Amino acid sequence: MSDISFIGGGSFGTALSIMLAKKGYKINIWARNVDVVNDINIKRENIKYLPHVVIPVNVSAFTNLEEAISDSKIVVIAVPSHAVREISRKIKSYISDDTIIVNIAKGIEEDSLKRLSVVIEEEILNNPVVVLSGPSHAEEVALDIPTTVVVTSKNIEVAKQIQDKFMTNKFRIYTNEDIVGVEICGAVKNIIALAAGISDGIGYGDNTKAALMTRGMSEIARIGLRLGARQETFAGLAGIGDLIVTCTSMHSRNRRAGILIGKGYTLEKACSEIGMVVEGIKACKAFYNLKERLAVSMPITDILYKVLFEGMDPKYGVYELMSRDKKDEM
Amino acid sequence: MSDISFIGGGSFGTALSIMLAKKGYKINIWARNVDVVNDINIKRENIKYLPHVVIPVNVSAFTNLEEAISDSKIVVIAVPSHAVREISRKIKSYISDDTIIVNIAKGIEEDSLKRLSVVIEEEILNNPVVVLSGPSHAEEVALDIPTTVVVTSKNIEVAKQIQDKFMTNKFRIYTNEDIVGVEICGAVKNIIALAAGISDGIGYGDNTKAALMTRGMSEIARIGLRLGARQETFAGLAGIGDLIVTCTSMHSRNRRAGILIGKGYTLEKACSEIGMVVEGIKACKAFYNLKERLAVSMPITDILYKVLFEGMDPKYGVYELMSRDKKDEM
Repeated sequence: MSDISFIGGGSFGTALSIMLAKKGYKINIWARNVDVVNDINIKRENIKYLPHVVIPVNVSAFTNLEEAISDSKIVVIAVPSHAVREISRKIKSYISDDTIIVNIAKGIEEDSLKRLSVVIEEEILNNPVVVLSGPSHAEEVALDIPTTVVVTSKNIEVAKQIQDKFMTNKFRIYTNEDIVGVEICGAVKNIIALAAGISDGIGYGDNTKAALMTRGMSEIARIGLRLGARQETFAGLAGIGDLIVTCTSMHSRNRRAGILIGKGYTLEKACSEIGMVVEGIKACKAFYNLKERLAVSMPITDILYKVLFEGMDPKYGVYELMSRDKKDEM
Repeated sequence: MSDISFIGGGSFGTALSIMLAKKGYKINIWARNVDVVNDINIKRENIKYLPHVVIPVNVSAFTNLEEAISDSKIVVIAVPSHAVREISRKIKSYISDDTIIVNIAKGIEEDSLKRLSVVIEEEILNNPVVVLSGPSHAEEVALDIPTTVVVTSKNIEVAKQIQDKFMTNKFRIYTNEDIVGVEICGAVKNIIALAAGISDGIGYGDNTKAALMTRGMSEIARIGLRLGARQETFAGLAGIGDLIVTCTSMHSRNRRAGILIGKGYTLEKACSEIGMVVEGIKACKAFYNLKERLAVSMPITDILYKVLFEGMDPKYGVYELMSRDKKDEM
């Protein structure tokens, strides 16, 4: 029996587990990687993905999915975005009708170009789905550093239940009724963070990056509005808040991957150096296709796509972005 | 004879001088400090405010104001905000009717609570006034690091003249017709940067600071809208762009002052350590009074005022900001 189960043994899921365990809940974690499971259960540490943080004894890890999640009232999906559909399909038979699904993965599905909450609903059908997002690096959440996030859902009452369950005085949760906006912000910010990292890696400055982030935010808003998001979300925690932390913190693996690419690493070498999934790469491919289909202007996504997949020199790419012929700001 | 004169020998004025001198203009700088004038003329370096950058030979410095600015078609006001009225009064008799005044000081006047372009107009009366603002740390502008800013004016045609005169392929200038918004953003961001620095100084994380910056942006927008600014400006370079760079860069003296205060320095000790004017301190006092008068909610300004001037413990201040009872984001 557990109160909350996490699917995936990555850094953010582990950090939330620790925080919720300290709040008194019994937590299960399912992870594919046997070493991660053993390290959590025996060494009380997720050495691979969240080193140097003690995991409380009321967190148990499993390699067996059914064992980990059956009887949980809340199941948190904490896998990379490309694994969300498959994992949703797998957990369906082990959960009850009123189990709340919380998604913390960020991205859109590469082929279908669907938001992840839609992917989950397509597979699981009847269970309520809540999305949690915002400026919340795992390394800081695990250490009780003050953090604020939003929860959203098509059914806002269920989001409020998660708000009550998960909130602590160091991890503050706000509700937001714009699920489209929250999910699009969470996916596109990783693209902008890769570009911002490239600018840093080339050796450009804080002025340059601030300009890129400002235009990046406009780009997020343009595609978001086209997909039905609300303007206010872009100015909130899931919007500009998460963009800021992802583009400026060294905890951001998307930014770090960008820095390596800016320094001349190949995409493959940068990814293997980071050692975790760099969501911005898949997001760039997906949103490149989506913007083409919807005829929305996303110049940063466009240039990043050319840098990542068509061999454009990153330095030339940033130059292109900075020197576009536009004389009035609006 | 000079093409462009700068009033003030600080870091940003000097950086713009260097950039414009490289573009071929003859530049004069007036500075009060004799050492700064001698260092520029003899050592070709502003050792006190912008060390390690060579100043081209077509920049000359003066201690005599009339000598520096008479015959200039463009006069750039580059003094701390509290000196803008006095300097405007002084230069009035030395300029012609069509001299364009460009203001790069950021703040509002402490007693009158007026925007600086209004202060300049009150003193100089008939000359066109252009405001230049955006994410542009002097240390990077001087080194030709790609930077983008906006220019604005009540007379947008004059702003376009400055855009043409000042633009280079590394220093891109956009026009923005919202002079109120641009000036308010430039003043309030220094308050938020002080608060963000305090959060850093206490040892809080990137998550915490991103949350503070997100709420800070709302705070800027609230007071700005009340004063007649346009919503779009907040999402642009003078808004979120400048806020980002001021809150995250170590070039930001407001942020650095905040870090020291967060570490336990007194206000006086922090200021003397920075050695340059920390605009956020005066801005905090001014906007504290302005928000009271206009009944606009500015919680970060409020708390910062209590920390700076009423002895509130900074740690308690940030805690207060993070734990306000607010359940829905909007």
